Amino acid sequence: MTDLQDMNITVIGLGLMGGSLAGALRQNCRSMTGVDNDTESNELALSRGIVERATNSLSDGVKGSQLVILATPVRTILRLLDEIGPLLPDECVVMDLGSTKAHVVKKMDTLPRHVQPLGGHPMCGKETAGIVSADPLLYRNCVFALTPLARTSSNTLDLGISLVKTLGARPLVLDPDRHDRVVALTSHLPYLLACSLVGSARRGAVVEGEIWELVSGGFRDTSRLAASHVEMMLDILLTNRDAILQSLATCRLQLDNLAGLIEREDEEGLRKILTQYQACRSGLA
Amino acid sequence: MTDLQDMNITVIGLGLMGGSLAGALRQNCRSMTGVDNDTESNELALSRGIVERATNSLSDGVKGSQLVILATPVRTILRLLDEIGPLLPDECVVMDLGSTKAHVVKKMDTLPRHVQPLGGHPMCGKETAGIVSADPLLYRNCVFALTPLARTSSNTLDLGISLVKTLGARPLVLDPDRHDRVVALTSHLPYLLACSLVGSARRGAVVEGEIWELVSGGFRDTSRLAASHVEMMLDILLTNRDAILQSLATCRLQLDNLAGLIEREDEEGLRKILTQYQACRSGLA
Repeated sequence: MTDLQDMNITVIGLGLMGGSLAGALRQNCRSMTGVDNDTESNELALSRGIVERATNSLSDGVKGSQLVILATPVRTILRLLDEIGPLLPDECVVMDLGSTKAHVVKKMDTLPRHVQPLGGHPMCGKETAGIVSADPLLYRNCVFALTPLARTSSNTLDLGISLVKTLGARPLVLDPDRHDRVVALTSHLPYLLACSLVGSARRGAVVEGEIWELVSGGFRDTSRLAASHVEMMLDILLTNRDAILQSLATCRLQLDNLAGLIEREDEEGLRKILTQYQACRSGLA
Repeated sequence: MTDLQDMNITVIGLGLMGGSLAGALRQNCRSMTGVDNDTESNELALSRGIVERATNSLSDGVKGSQLVILATPVRTILRLLDEIGPLLPDECVVMDLGSTKAHVVKKMDTLPRHVQPLGGHPMCGKETAGIVSADPLLYRNCVFALTPLARTSSNTLDLGISLVKTLGARPLVLDPDRHDRVVALTSHLPYLLACSLVGSARRGAVVEGEIWELVSGGFRDTSRLAASHVEMMLDILLTNRDAILQSLATCRLQLDNLAGLIEREDEEGLRKILTQYQACRSGLA
């Protein structure tokens, strides 16, 4: 296996995730190239020393690269995977940082056989987007899911694990469908619940104008994700449809159960289930 | 109106809320008495100088008091209101800090006519309970709802407003039923959504063991309220049943709408509603 230290790496998409990744790997590879459509992002990445070379040309950017990392929203990754195959050098490893994996991995499987694909999804982020917010420490201590394909060689998977460790993150290798079912519950459902809370308060505010004066810290925390970047979330919702619908159905059962207990004023039943929820949430590190 | 400075005040319930309130008012009244069943809380309140006198006797504690503040969970407030009437001096003002108001105010209306009742609900709190966490600055800058009864005199309401301002909080006078409908949406619904999220992840974890490794910061925020004190939440859920069921029904409509848009892959419809949610949440100070 070629070591990261000896590799020319290309990061496609110089936003928060790609910019942070490039910044963290820059000192641990032979050369770092950035590709972005946005000239300002390219200039900022160059002036901050995050990349050595920046271009808006995909073919130019991947030339001579041994490792290409797609760091755009999911549906852009899918479009890039349609274009990039013929441009890639022999033996090139293609990774991505997309938030859903089944669609990406399926599309990766259509890449030419001389290319080695590996799905990836770092479980970190920030409120603020763009390369201006890039931080080489962003990945430190986060879990970084890796979703190999059947055709992914063990060398490629080892390279992915080595990359994750270089970032200071913790690799977790799992099946792409399983990944998507898990993040539907741990990331996408929380977003939709936050949205439904904001939507409910908006509806209530039509009649009760005091609502916005009476929002508590609890409301702020529970609804925070509703402020997420809409286009990024659209990509996620539309590429993880089935798992998300399943997680919504699971959640509806929970809510209906709670509503029934409250309606029947079943104090013992409520105490039992709320105590379980409390123990479970308090146990989260 | 008697000024706070000239009043003997009794706080019943020396937990986080009562202890913090007593500590904040101590220098702004003639005397401060605390009443709690828990001897340790009484001793701590005395040794920290939060109260001048502490007792576990209700009748002893309210003797000579011009202002009695009930600072216990809601259903304890309801029980105290059953007992306390005959013990109270003439013209005594009775306030509470309970999280729901309709039941409390209805019960306050059964107090003897020589007593002046006023409902109250400060919109603040902390993760940690008990007088050990008491902080006289807890109320600073929070909204403090006041819910007068038909029989509440304007002098009593003025006293309540003065007390709220002395705490550094912002008074908001509103109808008790309206208060309960608003907090059902701003406090109780967020709690139930947090619980349903934890419950959904627990169900998912039966099949997908990686779930707890993949929880994101977003999951932590959205689920944080599920760790709330169960007995306090039970009191709230069982004394605000109808408004909470209504808020759950409103929320279910929002979730069903989102699920339908995702199921139909209605990108434009999703973009429109998610953008509204995002603007609304981002606009929260």
